[in-house]
Amino acid sequence: MTRLTDTERKALVHDLPQWSLVADREALHRSFRFKSFSKAFAFMSEVALLAESMNHHPEWSNVYNRVEITLTTHDVGGLSDKDIALARAIDAVIGD
Amino acid sequence: MTRLTDTERKALVHDLPQWSLVADREALHRSFRFKSFSKAFAFMSEVALLAESMNHHPEWSNVYNRVEITLTTHDVGGLSDKDIALARAIDAVIGD
Repeated sequence: MTRLTDTERKALVHDLPQWSLVADREALHRSFRFKSFSKAFAFMSEVALLAESMNHHPEWSNVYNRVEITLTTHDVGGLSDKDIALARAIDAVIGD
Repeated sequence: MTRLTDTERKALVHDLPQWSLVADREALHRSFRFKSFSKAFAFMSEVALLAESMNHHPEWSNVYNRVEITLTTHDVGGLSDKDIALARAIDAVIGD
């Protein structure tokens, strides 16, 4: 697990088009909107199991049908390959 | 469902000692800390089922073993009896 270089970080915009780099910290962010709270929490449950199995956990919040996810790797003080892997896995859950 | 009066709101400090009134908005807040992400998400799953059954949903966030919950009632633009009921139900989940 190593911190991504500037070049690698900039490439994320193309590799993970649904995610954006957070302005004021080294992190990836994506917003999700569902039809209901139930659908939102079902999604969160899937992501929770994935996160636990990957031993890498999101910072996230939920308000009714909306879920906000931020990914970063505290151990390297920035973005790592673990964030990319989790972002891809989350995209797969949502069908992207 | 009606908005709590000032007197009712002030009484919450005694009725729900684990919760605090948010400074800049009419809402209740409580922080939780668990032994692991799994424990935190197990708690969130219980609260999600409760919230859905009560048709009243929290604003909440999770970072690893920490969960932050804010309760407010958008329909009344402040705190209502629904927030008190959900706060009590959450306290019961945690064993308070």
